[in-house]
Amino acid sequence: MSALLQRIRGIVGSAGVITAAGDLASYATDWRKRYIGLPLAVVRPASTDEVAQVVRACADSRTAIVPQGGNTGLCGAATPDASGTQIVLNLSRMNRIREVDARNNTMTAEAGCVLASLQEAAEEAGRLFPLSLAAEGSCEIGGNLSTNAGGTAVLRYGNARELVLGLEVVLPSGEVWEGLRALRKDNTGYDLKQLFIGAEGTLGVITAAVLKLFPLPKSHATAVVAVQNPEKALALLERALEGCGERLTGFELFSDSCLALVLKHFRDTAAPFPRRFPHYVLMELSDTQSGEGVRALVENVLEAALEEKNILDAAVAQNETQARAFWKLREFISEAQAHEGPNIKHDVSIPISRIADFISATDRELARAHAGVRLVTFGHLGDGNLHYNVSAPEGLAPDVFVKNTAAVNRLVHDSVARFGGSISAEHGLGQLKRDEIQRYKSPLELELMRKLKRALDPHGIMNPGKVL
Amino acid sequence: MSALLQRIRGIVGSAGVITAAGDLASYATDWRKRYIGLPLAVVRPASTDEVAQVVRACADSRTAIVPQGGNTGLCGAATPDASGTQIVLNLSRMNRIREVDARNNTMTAEAGCVLASLQEAAEEAGRLFPLSLAAEGSCEIGGNLSTNAGGTAVLRYGNARELVLGLEVVLPSGEVWEGLRALRKDNTGYDLKQLFIGAEGTLGVITAAVLKLFPLPKSHATAVVAVQNPEKALALLERALEGCGERLTGFELFSDSCLALVLKHFRDTAAPFPRRFPHYVLMELSDTQSGEGVRALVENVLEAALEEKNILDAAVAQNETQARAFWKLREFISEAQAHEGPNIKHDVSIPISRIADFISATDRELARAHAGVRLVTFGHLGDGNLHYNVSAPEGLAPDVFVKNTAAVNRLVHDSVARFGGSISAEHGLGQLKRDEIQRYKSPLELELMRKLKRALDPHGIMNPGKVL
Repeated sequence: MSALLQRIRGIVGSAGVITAAGDLASYATDWRKRYIGLPLAVVRPASTDEVAQVVRACADSRTAIVPQGGNTGLCGAATPDASGTQIVLNLSRMNRIREVDARNNTMTAEAGCVLASLQEAAEEAGRLFPLSLAAEGSCEIGGNLSTNAGGTAVLRYGNARELVLGLEVVLPSGEVWEGLRALRKDNTGYDLKQLFIGAEGTLGVITAAVLKLFPLPKSHATAVVAVQNPEKALALLERALEGCGERLTGFELFSDSCLALVLKHFRDTAAPFPRRFPHYVLMELSDTQSGEGVRALVENVLEAALEEKNILDAAVAQNETQARAFWKLREFISEAQAHEGPNIKHDVSIPISRIADFISATDRELARAHAGVRLVTFGHLGDGNLHYNVSAPEGLAPDVFVKNTAAVNRLVHDSVARFGGSISAEHGLGQLKRDEIQRYKSPLELELMRKLKRALDPHGIMNPGKVL
Repeated sequence: MSALLQRIRGIVGSAGVITAAGDLASYATDWRKRYIGLPLAVVRPASTDEVAQVVRACADSRTAIVPQGGNTGLCGAATPDASGTQIVLNLSRMNRIREVDARNNTMTAEAGCVLASLQEAAEEAGRLFPLSLAAEGSCEIGGNLSTNAGGTAVLRYGNARELVLGLEVVLPSGEVWEGLRALRKDNTGYDLKQLFIGAEGTLGVITAAVLKLFPLPKSHATAVVAVQNPEKALALLERALEGCGERLTGFELFSDSCLALVLKHFRDTAAPFPRRFPHYVLMELSDTQSGEGVRALVENVLEAALEEKNILDAAVAQNETQARAFWKLREFISEAQAHEGPNIKHDVSIPISRIADFISATDRELARAHAGVRLVTFGHLGDGNLHYNVSAPEGLAPDVFVKNTAAVNRLVHDSVARFGGSISAEHGLGQLKRDEIQRYKSPLELELMRKLKRALDPHGIMNPGKVL
């Protein structure tokens, strides 16, 4: 093994190879601290050529590689196993924005660029890079693409996959596939970039990408809306899409139990209405037109919905401060939940038309099987994506309750499958759902995935033990 | 061979198998009449199960299959060779819309559905299916997806690939991959549907798809704008995107030579302005808001552009009739060209920021190498996609001129490559550009494509001689 490390030091320099136990820890543990690995070394290359040489060295010695970006993933895809034999290939030093081409509405960025820095670079060029998610201050674009990240603007702009025009990828052989095309249309054969997006580093290492930029919105409107139940939220979604179309960029749902947690744990938050309601919707609109048009539009939609008694109350933010206060109610939910101790999390998607039925059916089943559980349901309703989290019943210690994880997962995921949904909407499979997915995908589909894996990575050195 | 046909007749019935020479012709020739094949038979299954059984029968006997939809492709991908050994698998009988789910904004359609019928079904449900192209009255969605069709609304809604949530595919083994998910988010492993979209039937047979629907626009604005050159058209595009954002659904460029041809060959067309200008832009905006807002918006953008002297003149359609008249000027170009006899066509894309430079550089080179050629340049400028067509010099018979096709292609495509473009933007490779692409893709990329082909179709029975 030391021959390999010696070769790698020759490629990236001694400073680019970390082997001291104390220094490894932060790279060897995932963000949620569910997985604690032990790598042979963490290697931090500074260029595509260095990545290629390192991968070739690993390929020659059949050493497993775990690609890693900002290490903010939620399913352990970027965490090595504990064997002490895997190389963590951390891309953070590859953080150059190679080009911003405002007229082409594209930006070419290396894998290690922090998402927030890409948002800023786009804005400086008078453009929007719309990918936006909780970890944006530390997650990196290579990881975002490898997990096909979602976030809060998918409704309008799509998932990470939809934001990519081209990729540069180091293949498991150490060869570099130069696919950095900056074209909106290219029908010259198989669209190879699609293979690597969302593959969680199991087919190659994304080193750079050409990303789509959009016109910068010049006005926003944010509203919190109280609704009786998810069904009413869906009716509002339908109306909002019909009335606002492409201006609707976010449509988030959260239950009153979520609001209660946020109000309890964050002193600087306030309930949006004088009284409480069963569920809330957070709506965000944006427009390239400046002025009050978009706020008037959302007010029209909400007035009509009030008249039809589809919603119970509504508050439209009157300024940026109020809009941010509304967003906190949604964004702080995960953290508020963490303060209560562990819970059983799900990241699921359902056809939007069936999501209300899914929630009520699954709530019912859970109550029957696990009496007293508290449901902390929130998510990107506009995308059909729920973070359907289950907390301990009153009086039961969370640490004890989470021993039911397997049983609760089974119940929830079986329900998801019955409703034609997915057990991982935006987080990926990683290590966390690698076994679970075997139950929900057909043997044929799993075999197709394995065929692709074998075709591209015949020695199985790219992120083994993840996804498949 | 007759054993195979007997088996297939047992699957689809005698009426579903065509072998009479006279009946074969329309299936054996491509739309542009460039390729004339001779199949063993044309088979017309009526269900996914029949497709699967037919493919299995062909797999057992290692018989090549040529999937075919409306047979409107422009690169010969759906035309069999002349060996008399290939089976044309025509999907036209599979033309059922299985479901329209307005609240999920999806529609599940079989491969043989004619595109226009899908547009109509969406509109009946109060939704838009935005894929739109010249052949929409006869092309079929299976072919649209297999060629990742483009068309006139890509700027706003993306290519066919972006309009798909799920697929049902008969694999080369005859197994059916059931991937008909109706989800906006699904990160459970490799996104297999991406393999089959744009693969031109070389990896499997698409039998059905879940398609995205959008809110129905309630207002439109159409304008023709005169500009000095493509560079000025690009400046207008940038302004229009900044000012109109997602409302801009179409941005087409055509030169005065295109207009001259349309006016010459179509009596019911009229020049948009009292005098002629070097180039024209056709702009289309749409909005989910009804009323005059979108027309006022385009007028603002055009007034500002006139003041800045970026454009020379502009006409905004005052009603639907005038809007249709403007669109005819763009839509009739291909047919007007055909009336002049054959020409040398290119379907290329270029990064939008470089497209003006591409046009002037390539025009110059062509004039030098082929004195007197007439350039008929038009296309979807908003997508960076040009139909850069080259006609015979005055006085030279078109039939004689097109003998220069290989040389002209070489010159144009080499120029495309220098500008980082693609030699097939929206039409695919088929038979037409199968050899040509070898020059422009890296050996590594071609080998990756071959690896995928071998992994999915080890016996090479799916549409051999196309793409790869």
